[in-house]
Order: sequence, then structure tokens, then C-alpha cells
Amino acid sequence: MTPVWTRPTLASGQLRQVLEQIYRDRPMLHFTAGQTVPLPQDSIWVVCRGIALITTSYESGDEALLGLAGPSMPFGSALSWVMPYEVQALTDLDLIRLKLVEIEQTPLLAQDLFLMLAQRHRQTEMLLSLIGQRRVEDRLRNFLQLLGREFGQPEDQLLRLNCRLTHQHLANALGTTRVTVTRLIGQFRREGWLDFDDQRHLVLKGLL
Amino acid sequence: MTPVWTRPTLASGQLRQVLEQIYRDRPMLHFTAGQTVPLPQDSIWVVCRGIALITTSYESGDEALLGLAGPSMPFGSALSWVMPYEVQALTDLDLIRLKLVEIEQTPLLAQDLFLMLAQRHRQTEMLLSLIGQRRVEDRLRNFLQLLGREFGQPEDQLLRLNCRLTHQHLANALGTTRVTVTRLIGQFRREGWLDFDDQRHLVLKGLL
Repeated sequence: MTPVWTRPTLASGQLRQVLEQIYRDRPMLHFTAGQTVPLPQDSIWVVCRGIALITTSYESGDEALLGLAGPSMPFGSALSWVMPYEVQALTDLDLIRLKLVEIEQTPLLAQDLFLMLAQRHRQTEMLLSLIGQRRVEDRLRNFLQLLGREFGQPEDQLLRLNCRLTHQHLANALGTTRVTVTRLIGQFRREGWLDFDDQRHLVLKGLL
Repeated sequence: MTPVWTRPTLASGQLRQVLEQIYRDRPMLHFTAGQTVPLPQDSIWVVCRGIALITTSYESGDEALLGLAGPSMPFGSALSWVMPYEVQALTDLDLIRLKLVEIEQTPLLAQDLFLMLAQRHRQTEMLLSLIGQRRVEDRLRNFLQLLGREFGQPEDQLLRLNCRLTHQHLANALGTTRVTVTRLIGQFRREGWLDFDDQRHLVLKGLL
């Protein structure tokens, strides 16, 4: 799980400043948790703050998670072939819009984006490897640990996830049922490495 | 399934020439089908010709497909968090090696790589959406169609895949058994849209 090639991690306020500086004068949009993010064909979005939930749905009515885009990660319909491709603000969300034509004309911008996309790609591949695990218990355990490592805020000896993922979100992400997720989360809490705080935010222990 | 933002497709010989021109003087390595590709930590590979099979394995002994890198797609351990991360030449394979430090110092190279990585990312996300389908029949049908669209050579009214994927490869890719793959492929042949030629290469009809 050790990425070889990442940029130094910035605290989230600092990162937001850096992104705004780099992409000065670019339209930035704010979305509140739960809102749907529009996906213009001529642009991609880069996350400044918050987490975007990227999903697809099937004819059967089932849904599946395609990814979670956090700070400095790009997403957009130009980066996907999957149809339908739907994005929702999982937390309050600040996004910067980059036009494809600008990226093609600005090598320095593309260089930043390459690193950002590499980060998203590693996550997508990690999700793919999780989903391939036969036991739902392994899938859920590894998925929660991935979330903690990618999006958790370190505090004392634990990682706190500043968003609410419902059991149904987790079930969709992992191709299982809400009932199974609820049972396994109970088990993980008894094992002592996972808990929820007063605001129903996920708290993970022993990963730091 | 329509990518919005791709480069014009080049015939595979032409693409190889273009890649060699762009990345002149870079080490190029040849692998024969079946060989394992080494994964130096300080570099990524870009495919010039052929297809690389990227897999992981679990403690249970199961294997899973993480992706198929075809012409102009990058891969390498710097682009992955998954452990183990294993790459094998599925066909004869020509690869160009790019050092991470070169990419960081060459914005124009990063710009090319961004487009190439976007292509890989779209495929990985597509695999993720396939795996989430409940019915194995839907998974296999959509996976074979993805392969045809990405790697098939158009000929008359059909797409021919110039590589041999065993039923076991397909079973690993889709989290099912070899027996199920064999049964479903029999069904798809009877449906008339899929066949094998004398060399056991996959042939898909009605996708063009």
C-alpha cells in the first residue's frame, strides 16, 4: 500500500490555497453535500476541498461506486467511458473547472494533472483489486482502510473521515447488501479498530 | 461507451513509429508472449506494440485482472498501490521506459502521458463498472466487448483480437470460474456475435 511517487501531502487548507494560486482566475464552484455535480463535456473538474462520490447504475437498478475524488483529484465525463456516470458532493465541495482545450495548450498544467490523475488511477485500481476479493468481509475491511488512508484526518492515534457514508453507499460500493454491511461493521467495532463519532463520522484506529 | 476526448487512432505500426520518434534514444525492451515484465521503481513503461496483462493475487490464491495495457498506454509500480502488482506479456510486447525524474522535468512528455494515462484510467474504471454487475453473463459479455473495442483489429464486419486469453484468464478477470466462462462462451457463440479463429484468437461481430 505504499505509493512510490506522490507529492508531499499538504494540509487541506494549504492545498486549497495552492490550487487556487496555480489555477487563478479559473471558475471555482461550490456544492453542498448531497448536490449533483454537472459534467460539462468540454471540461474536467479538480477537487479543491471535500469529497466527490462517483457512481454508475445498471439496468437492474443496482448502483456501483466508481471512485471517490478528494483534494487535488480530477474527474469528469472526459475521463470516463462509463455510462451513466454520476457525481454527487459527498461533503461540501469546492471544485475548479479546467477546459480540455486549456490543458492541451498548457504543458505545465498537464504536468500537474498527470500527477493528480495518477493518484485517481491508483485509487480506481485499488478499488478494482478490492472488489475482486471473494469474501465480503475482506472487501469491506480493505475498503474502509483505503478510505482512512486516502481521506482520513490524522488525530492522536486515529484517522477521522469527515464525511458520512451510509451503509447503503458501502453496500453499493462493494456489491453486497446493506444488511451484510451492518453486520460486518458491528463485528469491526467489536474488533476495536473502527468506530463512529457523535456526527456519524468514521474513525479508524491503528492505521497510523 | 463513447470516449469524448481521445487522440486520433493510429494503425499499430504507425503508432509504434510515432512513439519511437517522440521518445527517441529511450531504452526500448522486447518481451515475448508469456514473459514477466520487470517493474523498476524509478520508471514507468509505455506500450509501443502488443498487450500487457496486469494482475494481482490474494492470500486465498485467487488472481484478479487489474488491466490490459495496449499501445500508447502507460503502466508501472509507480502508477499503482496494489500489492502484489504483476505484469506479463500477453502478446509479444515492445515497451519504452520513461524515468520518473525525466517526466517531472519535461512538461511536454507529461502532457502526452496525461492523455495516455487518461486512456488507461478510463479502462480501469470500465472494468470496475463491469465487475459490479451482478450477473456473470453481463460481466463476461461486456468485458469481451470492451476488449474488442479497445484492442480488436477491424476486418470486414468484425473485430479480431490478436492475442489468446484463456478461459482461466477471463474467469480471474471477472471473479468467476473457468467452467462458467466455458459455458457462457458456448452460449455467446450460439448467439452468433462471438467466435474463435484457427489460432484461437477472439473474433467479435456486429460491434463496428
